[in-house]
Amino acid sequence: MTTGAYSLVDTALRAGVEVCFANPGTTEMPIVVALDRLAGIRVVLGLFEGVCTGAADGWARMTGRPASTLVHLGPGLANGLANLHNARRARTPVVNWIGDHATRHRAFDAPLTSDIAALTGSVGWTRTITSAREMAEASLDAVEAALGPPGRVASLIIPADCQWEPGPEPLSSRPSPSLRETPSSAPREAARLLRGGRGGILLGGTALTELGLHAAARVAAATGCGVWTETFPARQECGRHVPGFPALPYFPEQACEALANVTSLVLAGAREPVAFFAYPGRPSRLAPGGATLHTLADPDAGVDAALALAALAQELDAPAAAGPPRAMAAFAPSGRPLDPDSLGRAMAAFTPEAAIVVNEAATTGLVWSAVHASTAAPHTMLGLTGGAIGQGLPTALGAALACPDRRVIAFQADGSGLYTLQALWSMARESADVTVVVCANRRYRILQIELERAGIAEPGPKALALTDLTRPVIDWTALAKGFGMPACSVRTDGELADALVRALAERGPSLIEAVLA
Amino acid sequence: MTTGAYSLVDTALRAGVEVCFANPGTTEMPIVVALDRLAGIRVVLGLFEGVCTGAADGWARMTGRPASTLVHLGPGLANGLANLHNARRARTPVVNWIGDHATRHRAFDAPLTSDIAALTGSVGWTRTITSAREMAEASLDAVEAALGPPGRVASLIIPADCQWEPGPEPLSSRPSPSLRETPSSAPREAARLLRGGRGGILLGGTALTELGLHAAARVAAATGCGVWTETFPARQECGRHVPGFPALPYFPEQACEALANVTSLVLAGAREPVAFFAYPGRPSRLAPGGATLHTLADPDAGVDAALALAALAQELDAPAAAGPPRAMAAFAPSGRPLDPDSLGRAMAAFTPEAAIVVNEAATTGLVWSAVHASTAAPHTMLGLTGGAIGQGLPTALGAALACPDRRVIAFQADGSGLYTLQALWSMARESADVTVVVCANRRYRILQIELERAGIAEPGPKALALTDLTRPVIDWTALAKGFGMPACSVRTDGELADALVRALAERGPSLIEAVLA
Repeated sequence: MTTGAYSLVDTALRAGVEVCFANPGTTEMPIVVALDRLAGIRVVLGLFEGVCTGAADGWARMTGRPASTLVHLGPGLANGLANLHNARRARTPVVNWIGDHATRHRAFDAPLTSDIAALTGSVGWTRTITSAREMAEASLDAVEAALGPPGRVASLIIPADCQWEPGPEPLSSRPSPSLRETPSSAPREAARLLRGGRGGILLGGTALTELGLHAAARVAAATGCGVWTETFPARQECGRHVPGFPALPYFPEQACEALANVTSLVLAGAREPVAFFAYPGRPSRLAPGGATLHTLADPDAGVDAALALAALAQELDAPAAAGPPRAMAAFAPSGRPLDPDSLGRAMAAFTPEAAIVVNEAATTGLVWSAVHASTAAPHTMLGLTGGAIGQGLPTALGAALACPDRRVIAFQADGSGLYTLQALWSMARESADVTVVVCANRRYRILQIELERAGIAEPGPKALALTDLTRPVIDWTALAKGFGMPACSVRTDGELADALVRALAERGPSLIEAVLA
Repeated sequence: MTTGAYSLVDTALRAGVEVCFANPGTTEMPIVVALDRLAGIRVVLGLFEGVCTGAADGWARMTGRPASTLVHLGPGLANGLANLHNARRARTPVVNWIGDHATRHRAFDAPLTSDIAALTGSVGWTRTITSAREMAEASLDAVEAALGPPGRVASLIIPADCQWEPGPEPLSSRPSPSLRETPSSAPREAARLLRGGRGGILLGGTALTELGLHAAARVAAATGCGVWTETFPARQECGRHVPGFPALPYFPEQACEALANVTSLVLAGAREPVAFFAYPGRPSRLAPGGATLHTLADPDAGVDAALALAALAQELDAPAAAGPPRAMAAFAPSGRPLDPDSLGRAMAAFTPEAAIVVNEAATTGLVWSAVHASTAAPHTMLGLTGGAIGQGLPTALGAALACPDRRVIAFQADGSGLYTLQALWSMARESADVTVVVCANRRYRILQIELERAGIAEPGPKALALTDLTRPVIDWTALAKGFGMPACSVRTDGELADALVRALAERGPSLIEAVLA
């Protein structure tokens, strides 16, 4: 029998949804049965819904195709919401299937009843299904909504009876929308502004592909403009083979200083730069007050920034960018305790070609992006787009399953990693090729910096306790073992190098706890 | 200087908020500073917000006073939302302090911006602060909203500038509302109905106190009516010293069968019983179609069900309930592999007097409630009210800190426990007297039952994978060690008894992994 659940899943499969990151409950059982019976869609269990949504984000960032998630009513969705927030900010296509009580049951306000649409609405597109007859059409609708462009989070709220009742024939359609071209006036105007001198370009979205980065370098060489990348990009090509532009600094005073001399700022796949947080007496806008802002490629309109930059380079008659790849950084272990710099040097020396580096390493990760990533072998970097920590390990899982021929390095802050550490188990279960490097500084370092910035020179015991992750020390090797993953702990750059070589020589996941001094 | 943050925290402290379960970020730094400087309010760090909200629920269930939480913008709140859903269903007073971007910064849609009020609205009362001048009055407003009656989740959305700008003098008011009395007509009508024969009473809320349970027993003795307790009570007195009524069964066909002969059902602190989930061809309402439902004490109106039952007993001239406490169940270890029954017998034998048993043991916990809890020493049971799993460990943490002179037993299903296992670290850090008993059946047993009920006699590999927690086996002793907690693993009832005796003899937390056959 074709149930509504079959109609839903089969339509999604035909539309190109090849994986479901799932943590279902009773109200999703008919979808579980459909997933079970339909070949061609992979099912991955997460022990917590934040693992599922973050993995879907990672999958889709690497493939451009939406992954689905399957979660249990409002509370299940709530547990996955933080990583959906990150996916929204990354403009990643994600399709959520959220079971709900049977339509006739909702009025009784059973214990698990809640306002699911209020939650899904906060992260993107929502459709609430009311009849099994809708199930095929709604499924395709969600995939199309997710693909955009721009990509977005699309949620279907699916009452249990709409799953178990007879459903329609699945639809056979595979939407493959392309990014849009920017209007031809936009590169012309950008060229005019940059020729005027003291210009700058901020890169985001597809401007951070190899094509986009090389085009930006040509524009910079032709006009002398400054180029910055978004502070927290969704996906960026990095390494010795591409131009290494500085990221716009995280702290607003540093970002304002970087942009201080810019009189016109061209936005290529990025929005106007604004402070991550407001501070007393500091502006929210990071570009100087008098500067002209010009949108070369609007990411919220699904415009291809790489093509727009290429058009801009052509408009400028910019010659092809010069220069061979940068030399590989030599690595000689110092034997000293690890700090963010020596950790980054060791990582850069041993990051394998074509790796995917998921960077949720917080303060250590900012040093990596600023200094070391550009000296490493060619790799793809996935960033924490929405500031909702706990994205790194799940996204690494999803990226690894999407790209089984590439090594994933989960470059992970310890505080953030503890949000969704359950991802380690799914990595072990799926034999995902993920090398987890936990930067264990055993504190919320960014908050200690923020306390200093707030003028708290000598925090008392309660403020210190809120930023300190010792008492007791967290043993990541034991946590990894608990989830079935081999692990080791290192304290020097030489030990880290050895551990990386060992980990990268083997298939499947392992974890390196890099204890920072 | 009195900042808005000081006004907020000091007012809450004077209103009786003695603890803050916190996971703050940059937008909450002024509140962190205020917590740091104000003596009298305890601050407990959770590594994940679901730990904070669940702990606040546990604290408030035991004290009747609200705990506060401090979380970071929309994503931080989202991570705590599932346990706030449970608190809402428990009618627990909880006050959430949620930092937001500075008022002038919101328009810029910085990465962490989201619709926080949409989320808080789904679990209760919300107020969005717009000026530091409001901070004292809003703080008191939230405490009053949380206290009710009935208790509820009250959320303040607090822009960073309202925290750091000068605030008003704190208010000095300590609201202590009492539960309401039921109208005098309600016990009269209940008496009339129950005298008619074939009556039943469903107990919830304060009907599950010692006073309420004894009154219910008097009513039952006088009228011959049936008595059931809510399936998932917020708080219930249990043990040999109180009448042991059956819980209304979880599965609707069993619940309907239990109530089949009832012609009038008196609701004492409980709502009309409805199925936890709908199933094809089964009713949502559990009482027979023709039965009269009578509300003796409406929990949503904050009515005291224990007093109402006492009034009902008086109305019936019911004599004092007879009988001494039940005898203690003898325990002799069988030496056989653990199953839910032998596990429950060992637990019942060694549960110490005045323990708090937090029951999130799912299928194993249902056996405990039905069979073993009434044979144990007098104890208080806290249940999973909203079905959002991951409540047990955090609630155990909060209950232990609220009641430092009582032992907490976190009776925990393994699948549910993995949702918020980070609570183990806070237990270790705070030296909380919690004995965690993980019922490790290594599967989502309830979902395997639901697959059977859905007619899936032979699930395929994908459906099996979604209900199976082996591949790899999760090692709870390693997870506990990772979070700094001593742990052991047991496989027989004798080993469990020995482990319980050892654990209960020492202060501070420890974990027992009880592997079920």
